[in-house]
Amino acid sequence: MNNKKPRIFLTNDDGIYSKGIYALWEAMNEIGEVTVLAPNTEKSAVGHSITISDPIRIEPCARHGDFKGYAVNGTPADCVKIAIGSFLDKEPNIIVSGINVGANVGANILYSGTVSAAAEGTMLGVPSIAFSLNTFKANNYELSKEVVVKMTKNVLDHGLPKGTLLNVNIPNCEISECNGYKATTQGNEYFLDDLEKREDPRGRIYYWMNGEIVNNDTSDEQDGYAIANNWISVTPIQYKLTDYKFLDKLKSWKLYNE
Amino acid sequence: MNNKKPRIFLTNDDGIYSKGIYALWEAMNEIGEVTVLAPNTEKSAVGHSITISDPIRIEPCARHGDFKGYAVNGTPADCVKIAIGSFLDKEPNIIVSGINVGANVGANILYSGTVSAAAEGTMLGVPSIAFSLNTFKANNYELSKEVVVKMTKNVLDHGLPKGTLLNVNIPNCEISECNGYKATTQGNEYFLDDLEKREDPRGRIYYWMNGEIVNNDTSDEQDGYAIANNWISVTPIQYKLTDYKFLDKLKSWKLYNE
Repeated sequence: MNNKKPRIFLTNDDGIYSKGIYALWEAMNEIGEVTVLAPNTEKSAVGHSITISDPIRIEPCARHGDFKGYAVNGTPADCVKIAIGSFLDKEPNIIVSGINVGANVGANILYSGTVSAAAEGTMLGVPSIAFSLNTFKANNYELSKEVVVKMTKNVLDHGLPKGTLLNVNIPNCEISECNGYKATTQGNEYFLDDLEKREDPRGRIYYWMNGEIVNNDTSDEQDGYAIANNWISVTPIQYKLTDYKFLDKLKSWKLYNE
Repeated sequence: MNNKKPRIFLTNDDGIYSKGIYALWEAMNEIGEVTVLAPNTEKSAVGHSITISDPIRIEPCARHGDFKGYAVNGTPADCVKIAIGSFLDKEPNIIVSGINVGANVGANILYSGTVSAAAEGTMLGVPSIAFSLNTFKANNYELSKEVVVKMTKNVLDHGLPKGTLLNVNIPNCEISECNGYKATTQGNEYFLDDLEKREDPRGRIYYWMNGEIVNNDTSDEQDGYAIANNWISVTPIQYKLTDYKFLDKLKSWKLYNE
C-alpha cells in the first residue's frame, strides 16, 4: 500500500442501523476513506436477490459519531451494484460486507446477503470480503475490529484472484481466547427445516420458518467447525458452478444422440 | 421407471398464475402425480432468498382446466423447503422448477429464483431440474413441453449425483428449427448494470435497476451461446464454492504464522 488512503466501500444485510456495520465503519475509518450504502432495514437471508421490479430510493443517513452513509430500499447486492455502477465517482479499492450477526458457513452461505454483497463486488471486479460474527446476540466487537482491519489490509496488499472473495467468520470469544487465523474450506453445516404452524387472531393459519443447525464436520479446516473451536475462519469462495465431473456422464445420455 | 406414476413437485419464480408453470403442469400431468406450490406473485431475481422474518401463508389455488395448486407468500426456495419439510406426505421423486420467462445462464444463475428452487431441492436430497425459456415474451410452449417431459423422464431414469441439479435452457424457436440437446458449462454471460434516474410526481428522486446482456462466449458448449444457436442447453450445476486453487496461496499469508 502507498501512503494514499484506500477507498473502502461498506455494506451489509442487517441494515444501516445495525451494530455490526457501525463497528465495521469505526474500524475501517482508521485505515481508509469509507463510503457506506446499506439496506434501510434488515435483509437477512435475501441471498443474491436484486430489485428489478420496484423503484429504488437512496436516502442520506447519519448516526452518532461521524457515521454518515446512504440507506437503500434494496438488497445487499443492489447496494453494491448501485455503488459501483453509478453512485461512486471512483471505484473503491475494496468492498467490505458485514459484520453480520450470525455465522455464514457451510450450505447457509447460499442464503447469505452478507456473502452475496461480496460476491456481487467480486463479479464487478473489486476485491471483496464478507465478515460474520458467530452469535445472534452480538455486543462485543473487540476481536471483530482487529480481524476486519487485519484482513482488509492483507487483501489490499495481496489482492485476490478474479472471481474469488474471502468469507471470514469470527468466533464469539475474547481476543485472549482466540486461537488465530485458519484457512478453511466451505463445510457441510446446514439448517434442518421446520415449519411451525400457528393461528392468527382471525382464525387463519400461518407458518414460521424455523430450523436447527446441523454440523457433522470434524476438521478445523472446515468453516463451521473452525469457528466453534475459536479459530477465525477464512474461506476463499468462487462461483464457477459447473459440475465438470458429471458433465461427461451427462453426455452419455441417449438424448444427445437422437 | 416402474408402472407406478412418479410423484412430481412443481414450483417457479414467476408465480403460480404465470403461463410457464401452467405449461409445465400440463406436460408433467401426462407422466406423473403432480403437486404445485409456487409464489403467489412474481418473484424474479430473488435468488436463493428465504423468508425467516415474516409469517408464511399457504392458500389453495385453482386455474382453468384441472390446475390445482397452493399459492405461497414466499420465495421459490421457501416453496421447496415447505413442500419437502412439512407439506407433502411423501417425498417427491423429482422437483421441477419453471418454465421461467427468460434464460438463466452465465453469471445470472446466481440471481435466479428458478434455479435456486432446484438448488434447494438438491440440498434436500431430491433430484431437481430448472427450466427456462429464452424469451421475455413467451407464448409458444410447444418445444418446451417436449423438453420438460424428455428431461424429467431422463432424470427419473438416470438419477443425478448428490448435490447436482440440471439447469436447462430452451431456445425460443419452433421444434423444427431446434438443433437438439447440448451438454454445456456455465458460460460468462452477465448484465452490465445501469441505474436509471427518475423523479416521482412529488419531486423525489428514484431509480430503476436496468442493464444490458453481455455475452462474449464463442462455444456452443457454453449455456448462453448454445441457446442463442437454437440448442437446448443442459448444464450440471453444483454449489461446492471453495476456491481450492487459491486456498494454498492463502495459507502463505503472514497472518497464519503469527
